[in-house]
Amino acid sequence: MSRYWSAVVHGLTPYVPGEQPKLPNLVKLNTNENPYGPSPRALEAMRGEVGENLRLYPDPSADRLRQAVADFYGVTPQQVFVGNGSDEVLAHTFQALLKHEAPLLFPDISYSFYPVYCGLYGIEYQTVALSDKFEIRVDDYFRPNGGIIFPNPNAPTGMALPLADIERLLESNKDSVVVVDEAYVDFGAESAVALVDRYPQLLVIHTLSKSRSLAGLRVGYAIGHPDLIEALIRVKDSFNSYPLDRCAIAGAAAAIEDRAYFESTCARVIATRARLVNELEALGLEVLSSAANFVFARHARRDGAELTARLRERSIIVRHFKSPSRIAPFMRITVGTDGQCDALLHALGEILRG
Amino acid sequence: MSRYWSAVVHGLTPYVPGEQPKLPNLVKLNTNENPYGPSPRALEAMRGEVGENLRLYPDPSADRLRQAVADFYGVTPQQVFVGNGSDEVLAHTFQALLKHEAPLLFPDISYSFYPVYCGLYGIEYQTVALSDKFEIRVDDYFRPNGGIIFPNPNAPTGMALPLADIERLLESNKDSVVVVDEAYVDFGAESAVALVDRYPQLLVIHTLSKSRSLAGLRVGYAIGHPDLIEALIRVKDSFNSYPLDRCAIAGAAAAIEDRAYFESTCARVIATRARLVNELEALGLEVLSSAANFVFARHARRDGAELTARLRERSIIVRHFKSPSRIAPFMRITVGTDGQCDALLHALGEILRG
Repeated sequence: MSRYWSAVVHGLTPYVPGEQPKLPNLVKLNTNENPYGPSPRALEAMRGEVGENLRLYPDPSADRLRQAVADFYGVTPQQVFVGNGSDEVLAHTFQALLKHEAPLLFPDISYSFYPVYCGLYGIEYQTVALSDKFEIRVDDYFRPNGGIIFPNPNAPTGMALPLADIERLLESNKDSVVVVDEAYVDFGAESAVALVDRYPQLLVIHTLSKSRSLAGLRVGYAIGHPDLIEALIRVKDSFNSYPLDRCAIAGAAAAIEDRAYFESTCARVIATRARLVNELEALGLEVLSSAANFVFARHARRDGAELTARLRERSIIVRHFKSPSRIAPFMRITVGTDGQCDALLHALGEILRG
Repeated sequence: MSRYWSAVVHGLTPYVPGEQPKLPNLVKLNTNENPYGPSPRALEAMRGEVGENLRLYPDPSADRLRQAVADFYGVTPQQVFVGNGSDEVLAHTFQALLKHEAPLLFPDISYSFYPVYCGLYGIEYQTVALSDKFEIRVDDYFRPNGGIIFPNPNAPTGMALPLADIERLLESNKDSVVVVDEAYVDFGAESAVALVDRYPQLLVIHTLSKSRSLAGLRVGYAIGHPDLIEALIRVKDSFNSYPLDRCAIAGAAAAIEDRAYFESTCARVIATRARLVNELEALGLEVLSSAANFVFARHARRDGAELTARLRERSIIVRHFKSPSRIAPFMRITVGTDGQCDALLHALGEILRG
């Protein structure tokens, strides 16, 4: 607290990311990183950037990366915005497209960064409760709003909303922006990118941190109508001309271009997830239906916080959310390698029997 | 223009960075990049990061880099904030520390991003005219304000303000934050970092884009009282948990640690600048006294825009500012290698004789 702070700072409750422990030999299943490394082509492209040319500014519009994203999805570069992680893309989206008179709507159980952005930019919002089964019910969003945002699959539940429901929401909500935050979509949900040419109010946001195994590189992007992209570019160019460094532009573009590697690592994660869900259920846990690279699971008689703490004693790190209270019984467990999942299942079995 | 845009977007006039031409074989003296490459130790550190571990998030607080900066300046890590280029550090500074009832003050001729940040965050500001000799007169800032910011050396003049003047300003301005933007300080001005332990309202901002030859990596930092740093961290953690990627943290820390390389490249730039100034004066130009890695020069009878255009025809790119009109006669010329400066001087000589 200081008299030098701008007024907004006093009221901020910053986002707390999942822990990045600096200890070795952990089974780290707490921040939904991919257990497999990045595409070898991405690593090669980055090595090519590490040299004399780092003395020069990068391309401020990152055209090579925008083109790679456009080619992958069959859209134009004018429909693509890129930023320093999807968190930066989200921040600019909140400021550029979601601040209006009517309140922004998002699920009560969702990415916990959304209310933080609202605090930073002074955006009014209302949360919309998930169903008893933790589903997003699109009918609940048919009311006056200044924008709608939700993750699909949702976080931290992992549950996917069918594309038909998203289209129904778009049909009934044409006067404000609808943002679908698809950080985890590549692990089994249907992408709304298929709808951007038909709905000028739709913005779809992706990250390279999960399905492209590049959490350490910080790259995300948005796809939507060129008018929405222009708003993001105007804010970006009023904030930081060069948000992506030379390594990030080159590595991200090469990762997007390597479709075969991307598809094979996603398939491996999906296969391990199926086995993990079966084994967790065999241990007596309930697991929500997941289309993401994590599962959300609870035991009928054991507290989520306690199980998380007991796993940690065995160097296995999963994530627990204290609030809202509806999700306090759950643990969010990242789908790791088969070996990491075996270690988790073995430890959990011992804890539950002990 | 779109009905989907937040109100602030309509009024933005984004910053326009110096051109990054994609043509080969240019003598590029327009964006104040260092003519010498980054420290070999920085390149080696970055190569060490390009691998499997990029699947993992970086350290959100970039402790290794904060420690390296703290060690370099003899301050504590709690006095250091790091960000994705000094432009991001500046953006957070404007939002976190410079938005108050009274207007922010900065020079009328200065870094042209400052009014853009004010537009983005709704900050009232007043510009304070430089003297007829393009000097910052600190007496002109002794009036009610919500903050003061200026570059030292100033941009695009290159002229330095003595530390004694900065201290006089701090003594007379204790109720609001004073930001000294030292992007170019290592090329010959006195750093105000020496004053941060005595003035809790002082924030000093640096970049690795100039004296550390890492414009392509996007790293900047701020040094000041822990209360000011805490405000920046709160805004950063409400915007993007992980602004610096793994390569940037490792490369920047190693660059800061390589003091010998830094000192030798700065000395080479300073030596070339002295020669460039002499030769420009011999060609009949007036050159403002520069403590930066660029010079600001005009010819009594030839227009700055015209000379810039004529140089461009010869593949030599310098920067020209159309406004304010007082600086329209000038060209801003980055200090390149001796060879690049020779090419510039040769071309300029031909143009002036022609």
